[in-house]
Amino acid sequence: MGKNKKKSKKVKPQILKGFKDYSAEDEFVRRELISKVQEVFERYGYQPLQTPALEYIETLLGADYGEEGSSQIFNFIGPEETAMGLRFDLTAPLARYVASQPHLPMPFRRYQAAPVWRTDKPDPGRFREFMQFDIDIVGTTLPASDAEIIIIMIETMKALDIKNFTVRYSNRRILNGLAEYVGLDENEATGMFRVLDKLDKQGREAVTAELGPGRVDKSGDEIPGLNLKPEQISRIEHFLDIPREDFEGTFEKCMQILGEYEIAKRGLDELKEIHEYLMASSVGMEYCVFDTTVVRGLGYYTGPIFETILTDLPEFGSVFAGGRYDNLVGRFSGQEAPGTGASIGVDRLLAALKKLDLIEAQKTSTDVLVATMDRERMSDYFKIASELREQGWNVEVFLGNNRRIPKQLQYADRLDIPVAVICGSNEFNNDEVTIKDLARGREMSEDVEDREEWLKAEGIQVTVPRGKMISTIRKMLESK
Amino acid sequence: MGKNKKKSKKVKPQILKGFKDYSAEDEFVRRELISKVQEVFERYGYQPLQTPALEYIETLLGADYGEEGSSQIFNFIGPEETAMGLRFDLTAPLARYVASQPHLPMPFRRYQAAPVWRTDKPDPGRFREFMQFDIDIVGTTLPASDAEIIIIMIETMKALDIKNFTVRYSNRRILNGLAEYVGLDENEATGMFRVLDKLDKQGREAVTAELGPGRVDKSGDEIPGLNLKPEQISRIEHFLDIPREDFEGTFEKCMQILGEYEIAKRGLDELKEIHEYLMASSVGMEYCVFDTTVVRGLGYYTGPIFETILTDLPEFGSVFAGGRYDNLVGRFSGQEAPGTGASIGVDRLLAALKKLDLIEAQKTSTDVLVATMDRERMSDYFKIASELREQGWNVEVFLGNNRRIPKQLQYADRLDIPVAVICGSNEFNNDEVTIKDLARGREMSEDVEDREEWLKAEGIQVTVPRGKMISTIRKMLESK
Repeated sequence: MGKNKKKSKKVKPQILKGFKDYSAEDEFVRRELISKVQEVFERYGYQPLQTPALEYIETLLGADYGEEGSSQIFNFIGPEETAMGLRFDLTAPLARYVASQPHLPMPFRRYQAAPVWRTDKPDPGRFREFMQFDIDIVGTTLPASDAEIIIIMIETMKALDIKNFTVRYSNRRILNGLAEYVGLDENEATGMFRVLDKLDKQGREAVTAELGPGRVDKSGDEIPGLNLKPEQISRIEHFLDIPREDFEGTFEKCMQILGEYEIAKRGLDELKEIHEYLMASSVGMEYCVFDTTVVRGLGYYTGPIFETILTDLPEFGSVFAGGRYDNLVGRFSGQEAPGTGASIGVDRLLAALKKLDLIEAQKTSTDVLVATMDRERMSDYFKIASELREQGWNVEVFLGNNRRIPKQLQYADRLDIPVAVICGSNEFNNDEVTIKDLARGREMSEDVEDREEWLKAEGIQVTVPRGKMISTIRKMLESK
Repeated sequence: MGKNKKKSKKVKPQILKGFKDYSAEDEFVRRELISKVQEVFERYGYQPLQTPALEYIETLLGADYGEEGSSQIFNFIGPEETAMGLRFDLTAPLARYVASQPHLPMPFRRYQAAPVWRTDKPDPGRFREFMQFDIDIVGTTLPASDAEIIIIMIETMKALDIKNFTVRYSNRRILNGLAEYVGLDENEATGMFRVLDKLDKQGREAVTAELGPGRVDKSGDEIPGLNLKPEQISRIEHFLDIPREDFEGTFEKCMQILGEYEIAKRGLDELKEIHEYLMASSVGMEYCVFDTTVVRGLGYYTGPIFETILTDLPEFGSVFAGGRYDNLVGRFSGQEAPGTGASIGVDRLLAALKKLDLIEAQKTSTDVLVATMDRERMSDYFKIASELREQGWNVEVFLGNNRRIPKQLQYADRLDIPVAVICGSNEFNNDEVTIKDLARGREMSEDVEDREEWLKAEGIQVTVPRGKMISTIRKMLESK
């Protein structure tokens, strides 16, 4: 209300800790990535799905969640005294969706690009709101579906112009066979998986130490070990020594060690089948590596697992990873549905693409600024803008309160707008327009004596008959 | 963990009350709408911005919010004991963003399409999560910016192929002048605005009653009146009697009644300026109506207000509406910034487009299903799919557990996939493929004696040499 004279206490404008705004520059690259990836996903028959940001807390955690289970989740009691929370991944909502749709045509292929929220302590590069881009196929146990996911991962990397990457894959069943071979109970096996998962980041020596008595890390913290027996550790070492070579080589060596364990044998057979499909797809076998050290942290994987590493940026870890989960939907009542899929950490992948110079930053999509020095002529500026928009250009009329042209051009420079149209009474009287190639002006040296003269000599600022406005601007935009 | 034998209690798979999933069919139309609207917005220089779903509760409500103020908001105490909430609109986050960026180039033009959340009691068609699509220009007081928003509203409707619509506009300052003319204090004025806002839905008679002693509505509920004096009501009636005619006519009549009130005079002058820009833009004056009965519910409007009505669907109310707010950013410390803008209720507009038959429902983006009757041939099916994808088609290999072709085709029919490729041992041996035009098959009568024969006679199912696979499919897809 304009009449409301009550003075309110002022609020400090701030964003929540661990959150960020995405500017136009951020949004353009994110949009481009999503559109390219989406195209690949649809090429394989995957369809979009959007689920709500909020879910019942049981949907996110299962019926028997404890206090600590919800610690990662933004959860609260909402309307109707309902315990709810913001989704922390896109897999739990997918499982809820599939379980609740008894008549869903199966297999169900879907992708979802959406933010997720976690209460993890934020630090530079780790946010409490971040976007995931998931692809899953649910309602099939065929290894062909795992192969399809791997193929899509490779095609996605190619669509993003990434040249050097590897999709490493293995099978949880092989690891379960390893646990049998080593003679571990369920808890010890979980411990071993957790330790093996550190291979990439901590290295072999640290892992060996953690399998045994433990170690002291760089910051002096003691990391307790699993205290496995030497002969157990040596069996694990034996397994870890399997070199990453061609599929058959790794397969044979793995068979020699674990072939007698039924579960490992089954896992190996599945990988063999997957390998055949990869070859048939001509996707490029140089991108695929059967790597027995792949573990994937998440507990719900039950079969093949896969992860994408950027060979030029190994420090980024895996940018697109997943695996088979045969029991996930089963925690809901209703139908069961085995599935397999993978997830992109969108922000991490964007950061990688930036570092690889594969993504061009763009501050604005505006092509032309129409400066407005004479406010009595606003209708004429609107007409000029209209005419330019008919060419398909994005055109902004300067509508700030400042009438000074240098200020208006400064504004255009800050936004990286490439071209400005300037029209004062001189131009209007002579039926002319002045056009400035701001993009070229920014690139070239400014260290000249008579700037006005220099701009004209260089063709950076030209005054042309009104009839030549469009062709002049077109030339400038095309030379960008 | 595959080995984990613990039985968990099953969770009932359900979605929260007032929330919905957006299927592929929903997503395709939403995506198309957003992309078309976004193109219009960028044509005028507006740039994307995304803000977090969560904000400090003070950002959403102001520093002096009370218990009842937060009743519409999903709010809770989050990490670090911080009071936070899900955004309920996109304007409060915009104000926070602008206030927190002292070096933002001004004016700042941005759009944002994003979900918002409200705890309102859900009913059919009203959800607790819904998408808004906002466009705003902040940092300008020029009426030219209000005119630009109106022009964009019109261009947006045109881009969506809507033929019959009206953008009605007025000015809060005129209403403030009316309040002076009638002799109302601030509270009474707010009451009058609230009642006048019901004109469209309740009609003139109900409004007159509510200005006076009140009324009993259809369901028998008593609606208390403002109990204004008869001479006050008659002044309001006098104002409401101003006919919707051409701009000058309405302007003159309004001037006669309220011209002596400075605030109304200013509002009228602003509208006159806006009217000039609308004419200059050649956007089509037949879409613009100066309508003195426009009120717009939101309290924060201070100047020109505008709303889009679909003439063929008046019951949908306003689908794209907004106005000027000069004090919004001012409730934050830091810079002040007047602005103007408008918001699309995306779901409501989509429902309207559906009703107007302006949006085509599409269940899938998949062009071809490769059926998989012989699982030993999976590699060959992958190769066929690969070859078809090279044509730019979206191709799905059937990866369900069911090997029966009728079941697989039923699946394709349920998803509206237009073409299926069928290859059994016969086809493989003869280097042929069978191709079925599922789309045409679904359209045509099924009441025939020998279905197999009929399908062939009609060219709905053909067996062709493998070399003719692509041209045959192309023909079918093109005839869609």
